[in-house]
Amino acid sequence: MRARDLLTDFPTVTLDTPVVEAARLLADQDLPGLIVVDGDGLPSTILAGTQVLRLAVPGYCQDDPALARVVDEAHADTFLRSMAGRTVREALPREVRELPIIDPDATLLEIAALMARTHSPLVAVVGEHGLAGAITLKRLMERALNS
Amino acid sequence: MRARDLLTDFPTVTLDTPVVEAARLLADQDLPGLIVVDGDGLPSTILAGTQVLRLAVPGYCQDDPALARVVDEAHADTFLRSMAGRTVREALPREVRELPIIDPDATLLEIAALMARTHSPLVAVVGEHGLAGAITLKRLMERALNS
Repeated sequence: MRARDLLTDFPTVTLDTPVVEAARLLADQDLPGLIVVDGDGLPSTILAGTQVLRLAVPGYCQDDPALARVVDEAHADTFLRSMAGRTVREALPREVRELPIIDPDATLLEIAALMARTHSPLVAVVGEHGLAGAITLKRLMERALNS
Repeated sequence: MRARDLLTDFPTVTLDTPVVEAARLLADQDLPGLIVVDGDGLPSTILAGTQVLRLAVPGYCQDDPALARVVDEAHADTFLRSMAGRTVREALPREVRELPIIDPDATLLEIAALMARTHSPLVAVVGEHGLAGAITLKRLMERALNS
């Protein structure tokens, strides 16, 4: 069992996709995360679902629970509206981190170790012809449980 | 909109649940994570899906991709078998971290900020009568997109 036997097609967004549209794609298709591709169709970054949410949470509330608490209920309900027009590129954090990208030859254990290490329920499979697809945590777990 | 209006019943496991059973529950019910409760029914910890997977990945592969790579394909396929009989308690990391637990009065923005900060697609709602339920990232996103 190699990554190439487990991968499936997976929707992608670009750095120019509006944050609200990315959030909608995630929710509507019940995805565990999103692959953001660059102009060449290669993964620029891979975002876990909570990182997509983070794009949409105002910066001042992210690290200070007290600041989120003082926003009244009506404005708290509509926090996503403040993101109108903002793109993924504008909202991405600057941090550099290991991306969950793997080779089509990787084994089940290598995929599992990468997901666990990067805390990503989604791994992009990139071979010599570019982005080949993705493997989700659900699919990996099902396969591991049946081996 | 408060946490109490968004929560749903959510399956729980205990510290004595076998890791393989916890992984099966996650995969079978397509859950974003698991709530681990103590003897009083209160959340002892909350595990994102990738953290449940981490319980099942042998320690020597977690931080060193090179070690996962040298395991042959047949053994890599069956890594979960090495967890047979191991409980959640035995596999939990020792690290102390902020748990995604929130009050029933929390607003949508507070829940979103907590999920983003703790990287957890699952938040436990705990009130004066104990664990009231959970809110998933999917549910929160859907609600935020429709506000």
